Amino acid sequence: MVGLVIGRFQPFHSGHLKMVEYVYKREKSVIVGIGSAQNSHTIDDPFTAGERYEMIYKTLKRDNIDHFYIIPIEDIYRNSLWVEHVRSFVPRFDVVYSNNPLTKRLFSEAGIKVEEYSMYKRRVCTGKRIRKLMLEGDNWKRYVPESIAEFITKMGGIRRMKEIAGSDEVED
Amino acid sequence: MVGLVIGRFQPFHSGHLKMVEYVYKREKSVIVGIGSAQNSHTIDDPFTAGERYEMIYKTLKRDNIDHFYIIPIEDIYRNSLWVEHVRSFVPRFDVVYSNNPLTKRLFSEAGIKVEEYSMYKRRVCTGKRIRKLMLEGDNWKRYVPESIAEFITKMGGIRRMKEIAGSDEVED
Amino acid sequence: MVGLVIGRFQPFHSGHLKMVEYVYKREKSVIVGIGSAQNSHTIDDPFTAGERYEMIYKTLKRDNIDHFYIIPIEDIYRNSLWVEHVRSFVPRFDVVYSNNPLTKRLFSEAGIKVEEYSMYKRRVCTGKRIRKLMLEGDNWKRYVPESIAEFITKMGGIRRMKEIAGSDEVED
Amino acid sequence: MVGLVIGRFQPFHSGHLKMVEYVYKREKSVIVGIGSAQNSHTIDDPFTAGERYEMIYKTLKRDNIDHFYIIPIEDIYRNSLWVEHVRSFVPRFDVVYSNNPLTKRLFSEAGIKVEEYSMYKRRVCTGKRIRKLMLEGDNWKRYVPESIAEFITKMGGIRRMKEIAGSDEVED
Amino acid sequence: MVGLVIGRFQPFHSGHLKMVEYVYKREKSVIVGIGSAQNSHTIDDPFTAGERYEMIYKTLKRDNIDHFYIIPIEDIYRNSLWVEHVRSFVPRFDVVYSNNPLTKRLFSEAGIKVEEYSMYKRRVCTGKRIRKLMLEGDNWKRYVPESIAEFITKMGGIRRMKEIAGSDEVED
Amino acid sequence: MVGLVIGRFQPFHSGHLKMVEYVYKREKSVIVGIGSAQNSHTIDDPFTAGERYEMIYKTLKRDNIDHFYIIPIEDIYRNSLWVEHVRSFVPRFDVVYSNNPLTKRLFSEAGIKVEEYSMYKRRVCTGKRIRKLMLEGDNWKRYVPESIAEFITKMGGIRRMKEIAGSDEVED
Repeated sequence: MVGLVIGRFQPFHSGHLKMVEYVYKREKSVIVGIGSAQNSHTIDDPFTAGERYEMIYKTLKRDNIDHFYIIPIEDIYRNSLWVEHVRSFVPRFDVVYSNNPLTKRLFSEAGIKVEEYSMYKRRVCTGKRIRKLMLEGDNWKRYVPESIAEFITKMGGIRRMKEIAGSDEVED
Repeated sequence: MVGLVIGRFQPFHSGHLKMVEYVYKREKSVIVGIGSAQNSHTIDDPFTAGERYEMIYKTLKRDNIDHFYIIPIEDIYRNSLWVEHVRSFVPRFDVVYSNNPLTKRLFSEAGIKVEEYSMYKRRVCTGKRIRKLMLEGDNWKRYVPESIAEFITKMGGIRRMKEIAGSDEVED
Repeated sequence: MVGLVIGRFQPFHSGHLKMVEYVYKREKSVIVGIGSAQNSHTIDDPFTAGERYEMIYKTLKRDNIDHFYIIPIEDIYRNSLWVEHVRSFVPRFDVVYSNNPLTKRLFSEAGIKVEEYSMYKRRVCTGKRIRKLMLEGDNWKRYVPESIAEFITKMGGIRRMKEIAGSDEVED
Repeated sequence: MVGLVIGRFQPFHSGHLKMVEYVYKREKSVIVGIGSAQNSHTIDDPFTAGERYEMIYKTLKRDNIDHFYIIPIEDIYRNSLWVEHVRSFVPRFDVVYSNNPLTKRLFSEAGIKVEEYSMYKRRVCTGKRIRKLMLEGDNWKRYVPESIAEFITKMGGIRRMKEIAGSDEVED
Repeated sequence: MVGLVIGRFQPFHSGHLKMVEYVYKREKSVIVGIGSAQNSHTIDDPFTAGERYEMIYKTLKRDNIDHFYIIPIEDIYRNSLWVEHVRSFVPRFDVVYSNNPLTKRLFSEAGIKVEEYSMYKRRVCTGKRIRKLMLEGDNWKRYVPESIAEFITKMGGIRRMKEIAGSDEVED
Repeated sequence: MVGLVIGRFQPFHSGHLKMVEYVYKREKSVIVGIGSAQNSHTIDDPFTAGERYEMIYKTLKRDNIDHFYIIPIEDIYRNSLWVEHVRSFVPRFDVVYSNNPLTKRLFSEAGIKVEEYSMYKRRVCTGKRIRKLMLEGDNWKRYVPESIAEFITKMGGIRRMKEIAGSDEVED
């Protein structure tokens, strides 16, 4: 069996890893869809699809997850086409794991099996909160796998985020 | 003569029907352009273009409006092209009825006749307010034609809206 | 029941009308999808979606077909999304009538019922051949419904085609 | 040497002119990239790319700037492609002048020289503030070059802005 | 008065220059629209919009044409929108000069004045023929203004064309 | 070191596998970019990106290639942006292997190292020839890895190709 999870992974944090591990344990094979793949270099989407792919790949390898597919997926801005868009870019799958209402509704409407999944430590471990910590200091590292912290540090990810976050005094 | 009206019709309510009747009576033929046709499955745009087409069609038929064209129109995100975009998708028309400032300006700038139209019961009968009522109970039915209420009920429209409106606790 | 037919209708000819009549008789309701709706002003696609909509509408009305939906559909250039794209723009339907291999395959793959339909007088009555006749003289009128011939003549359609067909001597 | 500046120029104001003069004096040649070229007829982007081109052209001519290129540049909505997108539309350049953090980061990441430039009278002379004044009265004219004020007045720009700004009472 | 000419200018050759001179002499101001601006690095479209802009600019300056606007224009793939697309990107103009049947038809249909213009030495001086000569030797230089030959030589344009023209033995 | 190869892989054949093995042996890590990812269900592009991903993944796993990234890449139709488009979707790489003239030129122009690679058995082992064999009988299986033949057979790939290849008698 193959399970599908979709996220923006900006960055891929410990809650994401728990979810992938959970799906892998149940299904023996997991597809990781990187959403909003076209975005990068913004405060909410700092990393490119390629950077996200590489950091997830390294983490899953080190975690001994043996059967996974990683696939960048661009936004299509048409909810009625979203499911088929995803389907045409990923290997065949049996079930989607999600706690996003729209994702659940769209896949259900298309007749695809959906499993509810509640994220680990949902109060503290969210992309938004972690990105905020990244702009402030080193505390973010406790919420992401070690390989992610290494990757972001080495590629100068924090500096990129800080430079983008710097803003002109007056909006034009 | 042919009159054009454009709206998102999410959903098509009694104010919309009054407007179509008014234009039909004056012009003898009315074009109903369904705007933002590409959108669906969101809180502000719950229904697909096809669903909106079908519910409007059934309503106008039952209302004995005898000469109407219904046409879904996708957004083009270029105000300078909007009028020609509409023109290329709809039959020839003589006049646009609207109370939207941008619509009026763009059609005027293109040399097309514009008739001001003020919506019926504009305080209570708006798409936004009706969609809010749809999430809360049955009161919405008094603001839409009977055939619209039937259609939405039968297709499970309220359930779709409620599922989409359900939201994950924390934004990512 | 509702039957769907899709074509470019450049122009809508007698073979198309036979097909719509056939589907209407069997299903009692017919959806006419105008394909490649975004195209116009070329030799193979001379008419806009709006012009095609109007000429089909007038023809079906005069033909006493009582329950039909006409819907322009833009190309999406992604075969894997085509069926859902169509579905989101048209009212609910039960069956597709087509003799186009790709159309049949795509709708079948999506689990939708497909009925084979062989076009009337397929040797003489094709869009391509009729467009050629339109550039040459009056003979084209025998292959289209009378209302179509009237519409095209009145709107100056032949002159448009001839002007576009005129070509610069040397390609740049 | 050739210097590049990019802005939306809605409208081109005195601060913009100072910047162009500064770059021209240092580099002897200046490229003026008109950003968000596809936008027009909104409160924040009232003028088309062509209108902005013409008003900038007239101003730089009158200002005796002798070597300048003006180029409309559409948004591409992909930060990772932005620099190459710009590069493919403009003549070869040596340096970018900007005080926008994202612009500076993206060009730096691509190995292109960036010069910090702080806008003149940044508190009072911004597009946003000037557009607000345009809706209110005549005071805006003191913040733009004379040729810009003439151009906008003559083309009826203020009336366009006021009509667009007029809003329907209730949002749909 | 302002005259508009549109071409791909791959490359800008002596026939193009004659045309610009002719329009400039008659109208006192000329807009040069660079069509298919998004294309480059193909056999039929070797140069970027920016490269074409720069070579045309240098040529017109040297030719003492004193009032010209150069504007890259991307294809829009919708004939019914083409005229408004062009209009929104260029300064106001009074007349279009063209010998292209589609261009003439589209601008006429929009109510814009069109002047027929027959290209100079049309048998020998076409983009297609000159590009062929560029792949073969030095003979191409006699068909383009001197400044164009210099520009292309200096930027390594011939080498780019030859590398692109080299083809893999077997198509995949 | 990381090497990048790009192809459409319709289907992934023995020549492709040799190439991936070669790059993997030299670089220890290989990125497989699936080009024209948006295409499927045509004679020249029968398989979706997801199907291609799955068949390549299974083949490389069985072949004991231990470190590979597979990434679908949509066409962008702008040669000047192609390299940055690829770069933003794939992990960091050191060198591109290709024998396609355009690919080589574009990556070279961007300052990226390119290694010439000549395909194995280029006369008999091409996508085009293999797709032709697939429509004719079983001979195609000798030109693809065993896992590819199994995958395509199991998913009904041949039947899909044959159905699409069937054509209506007369073009419209």
